[in-house]
Amino acid sequence: MDATLATEFSASLPVWLVDDLEGIAARPLGSVEERMALVNELADRNWRAGNGGPFAAIVVDRASGALVSMGVNVVLASGLSAMHAEMMALSLAQRALGRWDLGADGADLELAVNWRPCVMCYGAAMWAGVRALTIAGEGAEVERLTGFDEGPMPDDWAGEFERRGIRVSVGVGHDQAIEVFRAFGASDAVVYNARGAATAAHEASDRES
Amino acid sequence: MDATLATEFSASLPVWLVDDLEGIAARPLGSVEERMALVNELADRNWRAGNGGPFAAIVVDRASGALVSMGVNVVLASGLSAMHAEMMALSLAQRALGRWDLGADGADLELAVNWRPCVMCYGAAMWAGVRALTIAGEGAEVERLTGFDEGPMPDDWAGEFERRGIRVSVGVGHDQAIEVFRAFGASDAVVYNARGAATAAHEASDRES
Repeated sequence: MDATLATEFSASLPVWLVDDLEGIAARPLGSVEERMALVNELADRNWRAGNGGPFAAIVVDRASGALVSMGVNVVLASGLSAMHAEMMALSLAQRALGRWDLGADGADLELAVNWRPCVMCYGAAMWAGVRALTIAGEGAEVERLTGFDEGPMPDDWAGEFERRGIRVSVGVGHDQAIEVFRAFGASDAVVYNARGAATAAHEASDRES
Repeated sequence: MDATLATEFSASLPVWLVDDLEGIAARPLGSVEERMALVNELADRNWRAGNGGPFAAIVVDRASGALVSMGVNVVLASGLSAMHAEMMALSLAQRALGRWDLGADGADLELAVNWRPCVMCYGAAMWAGVRALTIAGEGAEVERLTGFDEGPMPDDWAGEFERRGIRVSVGVGHDQAIEVFRAFGASDAVVYNARGAATAAHEASDRES
Protein backbone atom coordinates (compact mmCIF):
# COMPACT_ATOMS: atom_id res chain seq x y z
CA MET A 1 0.00 0.00 0.00
CA ASP A 2 3.02 2.34 -0.22
CA ALA A 3 1.58 4.19 -3.20
CA THR A 4 -1.20 5.54 -1.00
CA LEU A 5 0.80 6.41 2.12
CA ALA A 6 0.21 10.04 3.07
CA THR A 7 3.10 12.09 4.41
CA GLU A 8 1.34 15.31 5.34
CA PHE A 9 -2.05 16.71 6.12
CA SER A 10 -3.54 20.15 6.53
CA ALA A 11 -6.70 21.65 7.96
CA SER A 12 -8.31 25.02 7.25
CA LEU A 13 -10.98 27.22 8.71
CA PRO A 14 -14.16 27.17 6.62
CA VAL A 15 -14.63 29.78 3.91
CA TRP A 16 -17.51 31.53 5.67
CA LEU A 17 -15.25 32.14 8.67
CA VAL A 18 -12.23 33.23 6.62
CA ASP A 19 -14.47 35.65 4.70
CA ASP A 20 -15.61 37.20 7.96
CA LEU A 21 -12.18 37.25 9.62
CA GLU A 22 -11.66 41.01 9.59
CA GLY A 23 -15.10 41.69 10.99
CA ILE A 24 -14.70 39.17 13.77
CA ALA A 25 -11.18 40.29 14.60
CA ALA A 26 -12.48 43.84 15.06
CA ARG A 27 -15.01 42.83 17.75
CA PRO A 28 -14.22 43.90 21.30
CA LEU A 29 -13.23 40.84 23.35
CA GLY A 30 -12.14 42.51 26.54
CA SER A 31 -14.64 40.66 28.73
CA VAL A 32 -15.31 36.93 29.05
CA GLU A 33 -18.95 37.66 28.26
CA GLU A 34 -17.94 39.11 24.87
CA ARG A 35 -15.63 36.16 24.23
CA MET A 36 -18.26 33.56 25.02
CA ALA A 37 -20.89 35.40 22.95
CA LEU A 38 -18.55 35.13 19.95
CA VAL A 39 -17.81 31.46 20.62
CA ASN A 40 -21.50 30.56 20.89
CA GLU A 41 -22.27 32.48 17.71
CA LEU A 42 -19.50 30.73 15.74
CA ALA A 43 -20.62 27.34 17.06
CA ASP A 44 -24.13 27.96 15.82
CA ARG A 45 -22.99 29.19 12.41
CA ASN A 46 -20.64 26.23 12.07
CA TRP A 47 -23.08 23.36 12.28
CA ARG A 48 -25.60 25.20 10.12
CA ALA A 49 -22.89 25.59 7.45
CA GLY A 50 -22.29 21.82 7.53
CA ASN A 51 -18.62 21.87 8.51
CA GLY A 52 -18.94 19.74 11.60
CA GLY A 53 -20.38 19.79 15.11
CA PRO A 54 -21.79 22.80 17.00
CA PHE A 55 -18.50 23.75 18.62
CA ALA A 56 -16.20 26.76 18.44
CA ALA A 57 -13.18 28.03 20.34
CA ILE A 58 -10.97 31.10 20.44
CA VAL A 59 -7.58 31.90 21.93
CA VAL A 60 -7.27 35.40 23.36
CA ASP A 61 -4.76 37.35 25.40
CA ARG A 62 -6.32 37.48 28.86
CA ALA A 63 -5.27 41.00 29.72
CA SER A 64 -5.89 42.82 26.44
CA GLY A 65 -8.57 40.62 24.88
CA ALA A 66 -6.54 40.55 21.66
CA LEU A 67 -7.67 37.68 19.43
CA VAL A 68 -4.88 35.20 18.70
CA SER A 69 -6.87 32.53 16.83
CA MET A 70 -10.29 31.06 16.12
CA GLY A 71 -11.38 27.50 15.59
CA VAL A 72 -14.53 25.64 14.70
CA ASN A 73 -15.18 21.93 14.41
CA VAL A 74 -14.26 20.89 10.85
CA VAL A 75 -14.35 17.09 11.20
CA LEU A 76 -16.72 16.74 8.25
CA ALA A 77 -15.10 19.44 6.10
CA SER A 78 -11.54 18.21 6.68
CA GLY A 79 -12.20 14.47 6.81
CA LEU A 80 -10.09 14.34 9.98
CA SER A 81 -11.69 13.19 13.23
CA ALA A 82 -9.28 15.18 15.41
CA MET A 83 -10.21 18.57 13.97
CA HIS A 84 -12.39 19.70 16.83
CA ALA A 85 -12.75 23.43 17.51
CA GLU A 86 -10.15 23.44 20.29
CA MET A 87 -7.60 21.58 18.18
CA MET A 88 -8.04 24.12 15.37
CA ALA A 89 -7.85 27.16 17.65
CA LEU A 90 -4.80 25.90 19.56
CA SER A 91 -2.91 24.80 16.43
CA LEU A 92 -3.71 28.05 14.60
CA ALA A 93 -2.58 30.06 17.62
CA GLN A 94 0.72 28.16 17.58
CA ARG A 95 1.06 28.83 13.85
CA ALA A 96 0.36 32.54 14.31
CA LEU A 97 2.85 32.88 17.17
CA GLY A 98 5.40 30.48 15.67
CA ARG A 99 5.86 28.30 18.74
CA TRP A 100 4.52 25.06 20.24
CA ASP A 101 4.33 26.54 23.74
CA LEU A 102 1.69 29.27 23.90
CA GLY A 103 2.76 30.00 27.46
CA ALA A 104 6.38 30.76 26.64
CA ASP A 105 7.87 34.08 27.79
CA GLY A 106 5.13 34.54 30.37
CA ALA A 107 2.32 34.84 27.80
CA ASP A 108 -1.09 34.58 29.49
CA LEU A 109 -3.47 33.18 26.88
CA GLU A 110 -6.99 31.88 27.39
CA LEU A 111 -8.86 29.19 25.50
CA ALA A 112 -12.60 29.94 25.43
CA VAL A 113 -14.91 27.11 24.29
CA ASN A 114 -18.68 26.68 24.25
CA TRP A 115 -18.54 23.60 26.52
CA ARG A 116 -16.15 21.39 28.47
CA PRO A 117 -13.72 19.83 25.95
CA CYS A 118 -13.96 16.16 25.04
CA VAL A 119 -11.19 13.97 26.44
CA MET A 120 -8.95 14.52 23.40
CA CYS A 121 -9.21 18.30 23.53
CA TYR A 122 -8.86 18.16 27.33
CA GLY A 123 -5.35 16.82 26.73
CA ALA A 124 -4.71 19.18 23.82
CA ALA A 125 -5.54 22.18 26.04
CA MET A 126 -3.22 20.80 28.72
CA TRP A 127 -0.24 20.54 26.35
CA ALA A 128 -0.67 23.76 24.37
CA GLY A 129 0.55 26.24 26.95
CA VAL A 130 -2.65 28.24 27.52
CA ARG A 131 -2.96 29.52 31.09
CA ALA A 132 -6.74 29.58 31.32
CA LEU A 133 -9.77 27.65 30.10
CA THR A 134 -13.17 29.36 30.00
CA ILE A 135 -16.22 27.26 29.18
CA ALA A 136 -19.98 27.83 29.11
CA GLY A 137 -20.76 24.59 30.95
CA GLU A 138 -19.42 21.17 31.87
CA GLY A 139 -22.32 18.77 32.31
CA ALA A 140 -23.79 15.88 30.33
CA GLU A 141 -26.28 18.23 28.63
CA VAL A 142 -24.05 18.40 25.58
CA GLU A 143 -24.15 14.64 25.09
CA ARG A 144 -27.86 14.39 25.82
CA LEU A 145 -28.79 17.26 23.50
CA THR A 146 -26.38 16.62 20.62
CA GLY A 147 -25.72 12.86 20.72
CA PHE A 148 -21.92 13.27 20.69
CA ASP A 149 -19.75 11.00 22.84
CA GLU A 150 -17.39 13.26 24.81
CA GLY A 151 -15.38 10.39 26.29
CA PRO A 152 -14.39 9.48 29.84
CA MET A 153 -12.81 12.26 31.88
CA PRO A 154 -10.69 11.90 35.02
CA ASP A 155 -12.74 12.58 38.15
CA ASP A 156 -10.95 15.76 39.14
CA TRP A 157 -10.62 17.11 35.61
CA ALA A 158 -10.56 20.79 36.61
CA GLY A 159 -8.14 20.22 39.48
CA GLU A 160 -5.73 18.54 37.06
CA PHE A 161 -5.74 21.76 35.02
CA GLU A 162 -5.27 23.95 38.08
CA ARG A 163 -2.34 21.84 39.30
CA ARG A 164 -0.67 22.54 35.95
CA GLY A 165 -1.17 26.28 36.27
CA ILE A 166 -4.29 26.50 34.07
CA ARG A 167 -7.23 28.36 35.61
CA VAL A 168 -10.71 27.05 34.84
CA SER A 169 -13.86 29.21 34.67
CA VAL A 170 -17.27 27.64 34.05
CA GLY A 171 -20.68 29.12 33.28
CA VAL A 172 -20.38 32.28 31.20
CA GLY A 173 -22.69 32.09 28.17
CA HIS A 174 -24.33 28.92 29.49
CA ASP A 175 -27.89 29.48 28.28
CA GLN A 176 -26.82 30.53 24.81
CA ALA A 177 -24.63 27.40 24.54
CA ILE A 178 -27.54 25.17 25.49
CA GLU A 179 -29.70 26.88 22.89
CA VAL A 180 -27.14 26.05 20.17
CA PHE A 181 -26.95 22.39 21.23
CA ARG A 182 -30.73 22.14 21.34
CA ALA A 183 -31.09 23.52 17.80
CA PHE A 184 -28.40 21.13 16.54
CA GLY A 185 -30.02 18.18 18.31
CA ALA A 186 -33.36 18.85 16.64
CA SER A 187 -31.76 18.93 13.17
CA ASP A 188 -30.71 16.38 10.58
CA ALA A 189 -27.02 17.36 10.89
CA VAL A 190 -24.51 14.50 11.07
CA VAL A 191 -23.31 13.22 14.44
CA TYR A 192 -19.89 11.80 13.59
CA ASN A 193 -19.16 9.42 16.43
CA ALA A 194 -16.70 7.09 14.75
CA ARG A 195 -16.70 3.32 14.19
CA GLY A 196 -19.54 3.44 11.72
CA ALA A 197 -21.94 5.13 14.09
CA ALA A 198 -22.68 8.30 12.11
CA THR A 199 -26.32 9.24 12.57
CA ALA A 200 -28.54 12.27 12.22
CA ALA A 201 -28.52 14.52 15.27
CA HIS A 202 -32.23 14.17 15.93
CA GLU A 203 -31.78 10.38 16.14
CA ALA A 204 -28.60 10.46 18.26
CA SER A 205 -29.83 12.95 20.85
CA ASP A 206 -32.26 12.02 23.56
CA ARG A 207 -35.48 13.74 22.50
CA GLU A 208 -37.10 13.03 25.86
CA SER A 209 -34.56 15.11 27.78
CA MET B 1 -4.06 41.30 15.65
CA ASP B 2 -6.08 40.37 12.54
CA ALA B 3 -3.03 40.64 10.28
CA THR B 4 -1.47 37.65 12.01
CA LEU B 5 -4.52 35.40 12.29
CA ALA B 6 -3.76 31.99 10.80
CA THR B 7 -6.48 30.19 8.84
CA GLU B 8 -4.79 26.86 8.16
CA PHE B 9 -2.00 24.65 9.38
CA SER B 10 -0.26 21.56 8.13
CA ALA B 11 2.03 18.91 9.52
CA SER B 12 4.42 16.56 7.72
CA LEU B 13 6.40 13.47 8.44
CA PRO B 14 10.12 14.21 8.82
CA VAL B 15 12.37 13.96 5.77
CA TRP B 16 14.30 10.94 7.09
CA LEU B 17 11.04 9.02 7.33
CA VAL B 18 9.69 10.14 3.96
CA ASP B 19 13.01 9.16 2.37
CA ASP B 20 12.69 5.67 3.84
CA LEU B 21 8.99 5.25 3.08
CA GLU B 22 9.32 2.59 0.38
CA GLY B 23 11.69 0.50 2.45
CA ILE B 24 9.48 0.64 5.52
CA ALA B 25 6.31 -0.03 3.56
CA ALA B 26 7.92 -3.20 2.18
CA ARG B 27 8.52 -4.69 5.64
CA PRO B 28 6.34 -7.60 6.65
CA LEU B 29 3.88 -6.48 9.33
CA GLY B 30 1.74 -9.58 9.60
CA SER B 31 2.41 -10.11 13.30
CA VAL B 32 2.07 -7.69 16.22
CA GLU B 33 5.71 -8.44 17.07
CA GLU B 34 6.79 -7.12 13.66
CA ARG B 35 4.54 -4.07 14.06
CA MET B 36 5.88 -3.20 17.48
CA ALA B 37 9.48 -3.72 16.37
CA LEU B 38 8.91 -1.13 13.63
CA VAL B 39 7.23 1.28 16.04
CA ASN B 40 10.05 1.04 18.58
CA GLU B 41 12.64 1.53 15.86
CA LEU B 42 10.90 4.62 14.47
CA ALA B 43 10.53 6.05 17.99
CA ASP B 44 14.26 5.70 18.57
CA ARG B 45 15.20 7.24 15.23
CA ASN B 46 12.78 10.10 15.79
CA TRP B 47 14.19 11.59 18.96
CA ARG B 48 17.74 11.12 17.74
CA ALA B 49 16.83 13.11 14.60
CA GLY B 50 15.53 15.96 16.79
CA ASN B 51 11.95 16.02 15.52
CA GLY B 52 10.27 15.51 18.88
CA GLY B 53 9.80 12.94 21.61
CA PRO B 54 10.65 9.21 21.45
CA PHE B 55 7.26 8.12 20.18
CA ALA B 56 5.98 6.47 17.00
CA ALA B 57 2.74 4.92 15.83
CA ILE B 58 1.43 3.04 12.81
CA VAL B 59 -2.01 2.15 11.51
CA VAL B 60 -2.28 -1.29 9.94
CA ASP B 61 -5.00 -3.56 8.65
CA ARG B 62 -5.36 -6.19 11.37
CA ALA B 63 -5.96 -9.13 9.09
CA SER B 64 -3.46 -8.47 6.30
CA GLY B 65 -0.87 -6.37 8.12
CA ALA B 66 -1.03 -3.83 5.27
CA LEU B 67 0.45 -0.52 6.37
CA VAL B 68 -2.06 2.34 6.18
CA SER B 69 0.00 5.11 7.79
CA MET B 70 2.97 5.99 9.97
CA GLY B 71 3.43 8.74 12.50
CA VAL B 72 6.19 10.05 14.73
CA ASN B 73 6.13 12.84 17.27
CA VAL B 74 6.88 16.10 15.41
CA VAL B 75 6.03 18.65 18.12
CA LEU B 76 9.42 20.34 17.77
CA ALA B 77 9.64 20.06 13.98
CA SER B 78 6.07 21.30 13.37
CA GLY B 79 5.83 23.84 16.18
CA LEU B 80 2.46 22.31 17.10
CA SER B 81 2.00 20.74 20.53
CA ALA B 82 -0.70 18.34 19.34
CA MET B 83 1.47 16.60 16.75
CA HIS B 84 2.12 13.47 18.77
CA ALA B 85 2.85 10.22 16.94
CA GLU B 86 -0.72 8.93 17.29
CA MET B 87 -2.22 12.18 16.01
CA MET B 88 0.04 12.03 12.94
CA ALA B 89 -0.64 8.36 12.22
CA LEU B 90 -4.42 8.66 12.64
CA SER B 91 -4.71 11.87 10.59
CA LEU B 92 -2.48 10.49 7.81
CA ALA B 93 -4.52 7.28 7.74
CA GLN B 94 -7.67 9.38 7.33
CA ARG B 95 -6.02 11.36 4.55
CA ALA B 96 -4.90 8.18 2.78
CA LEU B 97 -8.34 6.58 3.02
CA GLY B 98 -10.25 9.81 2.42
CA ARG B 99 -12.57 9.55 5.42
CA TRP B 100 -12.84 10.69 9.04
CA ASP B 101 -14.08 7.29 10.23
CA LEU B 102 -11.36 4.66 9.84
CA GLY B 103 -13.87 2.02 10.94
CA ALA B 104 -16.39 2.72 8.19
CA ASP B 105 -17.55 -0.16 5.99
CA GLY B 106 -16.38 -2.74 8.54
CA ALA B 107 -12.69 -1.85 8.22
CA ASP B 108 -10.68 -3.43 11.05
CA LEU B 109 -7.67 -1.18 11.58
CA GLU B 110 -5.20 -1.26 14.45
CA LEU B 111 -3.21 1.58 15.99
CA ALA B 112 0.15 0.33 17.30
CA VAL B 113 2.12 2.70 19.57
CA ASN B 114 5.23 2.30 21.69
CA TRP B 115 3.40 3.13 24.94
CA ARG B 116 -0.03 3.96 26.32
CA PRO B 117 -1.17 7.22 24.68
CA CYS B 118 -1.25 10.48 26.63
CA VAL B 119 -4.72 11.72 27.52
CA MET B 120 -5.03 13.74 24.28
CA CYS B 121 -4.11 10.80 22.06
CA TYR B 122 -6.30 8.54 24.19
CA GLY B 123 -9.25 10.60 22.99
CA ALA B 124 -7.91 10.87 19.44
CA ALA B 125 -7.69 7.06 19.22
CA MET B 126 -11.26 6.81 20.54
CA TRP B 127 -12.68 9.15 17.87
CA ALA B 128 -10.71 7.95 14.82
CA GLY B 129 -12.50 4.68 14.14
CA VAL B 130 -9.66 2.21 14.75
CA ARG B 131 -10.88 -1.09 16.17
CA ALA B 132 -7.77 -2.05 18.11
CA LEU B 133 -4.99 -0.43 20.13
CA THR B 134 -1.72 -2.29 20.63
CA ILE B 135 0.86 -0.83 23.00
CA ALA B 136 4.19 -1.96 24.43
CA GLY B 137 3.32 -0.92 27.98
CA GLU B 138 1.06 1.27 30.07
CA GLY B 139 2.83 2.18 33.30
CA ALA B 140 4.48 5.29 34.73
CA GLU B 141 7.89 4.16 33.43
CA VAL B 142 7.51 6.45 30.44
CA GLU B 143 7.09 9.53 32.63
CA ARG B 144 9.85 8.49 35.03
CA LEU B 145 12.34 7.69 32.27
CA THR B 146 11.56 10.50 29.82
CA GLY B 147 10.21 13.34 31.98
CA PHE B 148 7.08 13.83 29.86
CA ASP B 149 3.73 14.54 31.50
CA GLU B 150 1.20 12.06 30.06
CA GLY B 151 -1.80 13.62 31.78
CA PRO B 152 -4.56 12.20 33.98
CA MET B 153 -6.35 9.15 32.59
CA PRO B 154 -9.74 7.81 33.63
CA ASP B 155 -9.41 4.86 36.03
CA ASP B 156 -10.77 2.24 33.68
CA TRP B 157 -9.06 3.60 30.58
CA ALA B 158 -8.87 0.26 28.76
CA GLY B 159 -12.43 -0.70 29.63
CA GLU B 160 -13.64 2.57 28.11
CA PHE B 161 -12.00 1.51 24.84
CA GLU B 162 -13.45 -1.98 25.00
CA ARG B 163 -16.96 -0.64 25.64
CA ARG B 164 -16.61 1.36 22.41
CA GLY B 165 -15.56 -1.71 20.42
CA ILE B 166 -11.81 -1.05 20.52
CA ARG B 167 -9.69 -4.03 21.65
CA VAL B 168 -6.62 -3.24 23.74
CA SER B 169 -3.42 -5.35 23.80
CA VAL B 170 -0.54 -4.48 26.11
CA GLY B 171 3.02 -5.76 26.37
CA VAL B 172 4.41 -6.68 22.97
CA GLY B 173 7.82 -5.04 22.45
CA HIS B 174 7.93 -3.88 26.07
CA ASP B 175 11.67 -4.22 26.74
CA GLN B 176 12.64 -2.53 23.51
CA ALA B 177 10.30 0.37 24.30
CA ILE B 178 11.86 0.82 27.73
CA GLU B 179 15.31 0.82 26.15
CA VAL B 180 14.29 3.69 23.84
CA PHE B 181 12.89 5.74 26.73
CA ARG B 182 16.00 5.11 28.81
CA ALA B 183 18.31 6.30 26.01
CA PHE B 184 16.17 9.40 25.50
CA GLY B 185 16.10 10.12 29.22
CA ALA B 186 19.89 10.03 29.44
CA SER B 187 20.25 12.53 26.58
CA ASP B 188 20.10 16.30 26.20
CA ALA B 189 17.01 16.12 23.96
CA VAL B 190 14.23 18.61 24.69
CA VAL B 191 11.30 17.61 26.89
CA TYR B 192 8.53 19.89 25.65
CA ASN B 193 6.04 19.95 28.47
CA ALA B 194 4.32 23.25 27.78
CA ARG B 195 3.81 26.35 29.91
CA GLY B 196 7.47 27.31 29.79
CA ALA B 197 8.69 24.04 31.28
CA ALA B 198 10.91 22.85 28.42
CA THR B 199 13.99 21.16 29.86
CA ALA B 200 16.66 18.70 28.79
CA ALA B 201 15.60 15.06 29.09
CA HIS B 202 18.35 14.15 31.51
CA GLU B 203 17.12 16.89 33.87
CA ALA B 204 13.42 16.12 33.53
CA SER B 205 13.68 12.36 34.04
CA ASP B 206 14.23 10.80 37.42
CA ARG B 207 17.80 9.61 37.28
CA GLU B 208 17.39 7.66 40.51
CA SER B 209 14.76 5.36 39.05
